[in-house]
Amino acid sequence: MTIRALVWGENIHERENAEVAKLYPDGMHSTIAAALREGGEIEAETATLQEPEHGLTEARLERTDVLLWWGHRAHGDVDDAIVERVQARVWEGMGLIVLHSGHFSKIFKRLMGTPCSLRWREAGERERLWVINPSHPIAAGLGEHIEIPMTEMYGEPFTVPEPAETVFVSWYEGGEVFRSGLTFQRGAGRIFYFSPGHETYPIYHQGDVQIVLRNAVRWAHNPAPRWRDIGEAPNVPTKEAPEALEERGPKLHAEGEAGFR
Amino acid sequence: MTIRALVWGENIHERENAEVAKLYPDGMHSTIAAALREGGEIEAETATLQEPEHGLTEARLERTDVLLWWGHRAHGDVDDAIVERVQARVWEGMGLIVLHSGHFSKIFKRLMGTPCSLRWREAGERERLWVINPSHPIAAGLGEHIEIPMTEMYGEPFTVPEPAETVFVSWYEGGEVFRSGLTFQRGAGRIFYFSPGHETYPIYHQGDVQIVLRNAVRWAHNPAPRWRDIGEAPNVPTKEAPEALEERGPKLHAEGEAGFR
Amino acid sequence: MTIRALVWGENIHERENAEVAKLYPDGMHSTIAAALREGGEIEAETATLQEPEHGLTEARLERTDVLLWWGHRAHGDVDDAIVERVQARVWEGMGLIVLHSGHFSKIFKRLMGTPCSLRWREAGERERLWVINPSHPIAAGLGEHIEIPMTEMYGEPFTVPEPAETVFVSWYEGGEVFRSGLTFQRGAGRIFYFSPGHETYPIYHQGDVQIVLRNAVRWAHNPAPRWRDIGEAPNVPTKEAPEALEERGPKLHAEGEAGFR
Amino acid sequence: MTIRALVWGENIHERENAEVAKLYPDGMHSTIAAALREGGEIEAETATLQEPEHGLTEARLERTDVLLWWGHRAHGDVDDAIVERVQARVWEGMGLIVLHSGHFSKIFKRLMGTPCSLRWREAGERERLWVINPSHPIAAGLGEHIEIPMTEMYGEPFTVPEPAETVFVSWYEGGEVFRSGLTFQRGAGRIFYFSPGHETYPIYHQGDVQIVLRNAVRWAHNPAPRWRDIGEAPNVPTKEAPEALEERGPKLHAEGEAGFR
Repeated sequence: MTIRALVWGENIHERENAEVAKLYPDGMHSTIAAALREGGEIEAETATLQEPEHGLTEARLERTDVLLWWGHRAHGDVDDAIVERVQARVWEGMGLIVLHSGHFSKIFKRLMGTPCSLRWREAGERERLWVINPSHPIAAGLGEHIEIPMTEMYGEPFTVPEPAETVFVSWYEGGEVFRSGLTFQRGAGRIFYFSPGHETYPIYHQGDVQIVLRNAVRWAHNPAPRWRDIGEAPNVPTKEAPEALEERGPKLHAEGEAGFR
Repeated sequence: MTIRALVWGENIHERENAEVAKLYPDGMHSTIAAALREGGEIEAETATLQEPEHGLTEARLERTDVLLWWGHRAHGDVDDAIVERVQARVWEGMGLIVLHSGHFSKIFKRLMGTPCSLRWREAGERERLWVINPSHPIAAGLGEHIEIPMTEMYGEPFTVPEPAETVFVSWYEGGEVFRSGLTFQRGAGRIFYFSPGHETYPIYHQGDVQIVLRNAVRWAHNPAPRWRDIGEAPNVPTKEAPEALEERGPKLHAEGEAGFR
Repeated sequence: MTIRALVWGENIHERENAEVAKLYPDGMHSTIAAALREGGEIEAETATLQEPEHGLTEARLERTDVLLWWGHRAHGDVDDAIVERVQARVWEGMGLIVLHSGHFSKIFKRLMGTPCSLRWREAGERERLWVINPSHPIAAGLGEHIEIPMTEMYGEPFTVPEPAETVFVSWYEGGEVFRSGLTFQRGAGRIFYFSPGHETYPIYHQGDVQIVLRNAVRWAHNPAPRWRDIGEAPNVPTKEAPEALEERGPKLHAEGEAGFR
Repeated sequence: MTIRALVWGENIHERENAEVAKLYPDGMHSTIAAALREGGEIEAETATLQEPEHGLTEARLERTDVLLWWGHRAHGDVDDAIVERVQARVWEGMGLIVLHSGHFSKIFKRLMGTPCSLRWREAGERERLWVINPSHPIAAGLGEHIEIPMTEMYGEPFTVPEPAETVFVSWYEGGEVFRSGLTFQRGAGRIFYFSPGHETYPIYHQGDVQIVLRNAVRWAHNPAPRWRDIGEAPNVPTKEAPEALEERGPKLHAEGEAGFR
């Protein structure tokens, strides 16, 4: 089964910063999308902040199984209405993979309900992501760890809710640790946060990082029919109750009236 | 140690609906606050939608250990700025107890990151809340179940994230079930959702329901110092890294520059 | 990909009790295995208590992806050595589906680390399993609930650890509730507990129950390579440490010595 | 309220190894018990492997609120009957704090249901335990991390079930990481695993480590009445069902008969 992935990129530093442009001449989103296409099972398209509706129209999201999100400098420029649209699609079953500085994106903070803050340092130090559960689908094909020669340090406490699973924990040369691969579920949507990916280093060109991205897309893909009415609060009329029931007591709502929200 | 609770009530149906007014002449919030005061350990005040800033000023929240929230008809009238203020206090460590129709309150939906929807029926049917873990602090002093003679049915699926603990599960006369007592944590804040409390029935006058409310306040009280900077993302300068570290590679941020958000 | 399932049956009541024999003339395990084979993706074999090594030889388990377990009257007759063997295979990645009275099987209690007790009543009452998350793979193809006309009541508290996910919650005519579909993970092994299946009723002949069994086998199948050394505690010699390291301080173990266990 | 703690020590290396004896002349259990007594709220006694019934008689456990467990070389010498007794008390509500090499103790493996394996290296390297949630009661009074000058490395994967909460994650000089403080619940019993404590280093003499031990005892203490019948599976006779119920269909059990186990 083909999985339709959409890689969303903020696409600013790639154009404005010479170092980043050298590493990702077509944008980080293009590099990531190309990595997803390897293996053949994943169809990957891209969308960027600068496109109308940030490239995340209803129609586009409708045909997206898994969305990947990379943003950093312009979280505030993402339109709230688009964020709500993405959130609604996640609830319905679209997978979401949040990358690196996307920890502070509007969409991730909304889905977590927490600050999603952390500590950081940009010193080009070494990072080693340890595989916590080698049998997890997201870790398939990896060795016992991934080594990233130069990285931005992200340190604990990472203020997210207790995750469903901790897949990776990172060691940093400077002395910190970070839960660098975490899974969550919101409604029908599976969410994976993966911390590597600072734009001044060639991290998304690394083979084992690309393996994680492909695995994560496969894992986040929920083949269940979309849960269209997940946000509704249907009234179950007394005469349609599973067990025969006689009404008693005072009522607030008239027959057939909608609930308050 | 005294725990300072604040009971927030929407305070509309108690004034506009004769049935509700008869049951709760001073408002549901007053009944709940009085119940909390029994036992002596909890100081309980009240606040309502109609007060300036909905009674939830910075100063008020500052001296609140645990907030209880009952809203139904006017979720949309709660000011977004106040909701953000409450959310920030929860992250810092204020406990939050969300009651009944509060499942659709802005504050609960923001903290959960999900629709928080459910199915419902107002037929005055019988509900039985089964204690899933009798050793949980919130179940202290209860028997094996709580019976509510007339209730509004709330049915699954209840679209919240997988909870930390399932404390109660409800049986309904009409044939449905509901996870009626669930715990969550967001930042330093402990959250308990408790479904009983439809306003047309005398549910908050029931002794065992009042026991749950008092237990929940004690459980949700986090005596840790407030986590004031939970939303910040501090830079750790290279020279302050726990391990001696030499910078290498290109950098995005100049020395001492704040991160993007 | 074909999934190799093995259905283990205690196979006592089917032979000794006329009522059960009428419903399951070839044993419950045969009925379950036949149900798994429908759809074509699952190869299902059976094994019973009475076979040598209970039909669970090393070779048999070696070629098993998912084991289903139904036992009731003779939990104590299952050999401890076989239980340990099954447990080790679960850790390595074999899925395990524990059915009905299997809650008190040695293998389930060992994997949970808790009493796995519950309350029960055999009155042929009605049960309704509500789907908590319709997007979960185990609920694929079901409606909003499964109804079982005659069932044995299993009531809370069900003394298992907090599950990874609650997939089903049951309503009983007599007034109780039960978390009737729960997922767990132990090592690389995915575990699903599913409560329906009392032997005096034709429950495993029901179409929607069979759908759950097939879904559960697919969900429990972990395609990862077997985690053969999961029980080992390898020493990492200082000279093979990921970072250059100089030994210091006193040591308990001589170079290359195995750890204590 | 006074909490009654019991510190169990294997008490072998302290007597047989000169290095360990120098650090812990009265045994590690005595050092730990003395540390618990500071602050005054905790009454701490000790028990050792060499005492009759390993010092864990029914009467002793009966008056124990929280048991701490340090073992290493002689896990196999602990009597299975005593392990079962301890496990039963944990289920009933006794807290359990498992220290360092206790990860391979019979009691911990039984309660987890997993291998509890890990990787290790004894090189006297530096360890830094990062506080993941500073608002957790077990982290009260700590700074952002604990530094241990010389430690035994314990590395991931640590094959325990997904924990309720991750309280500490460790960084090691040699390049590994470890989830060094984890909480679990089994029945009414709260369990905390804490990895520091290799016997050849003076780790339990460290002030911040002692703070963690005291905090953990307070956290693990469950004041609920003991859950005496947690292992029983009571029959609920039809005439005592919460809802009026008429029996139908065939039955396996005669009236009043006990269930199988």
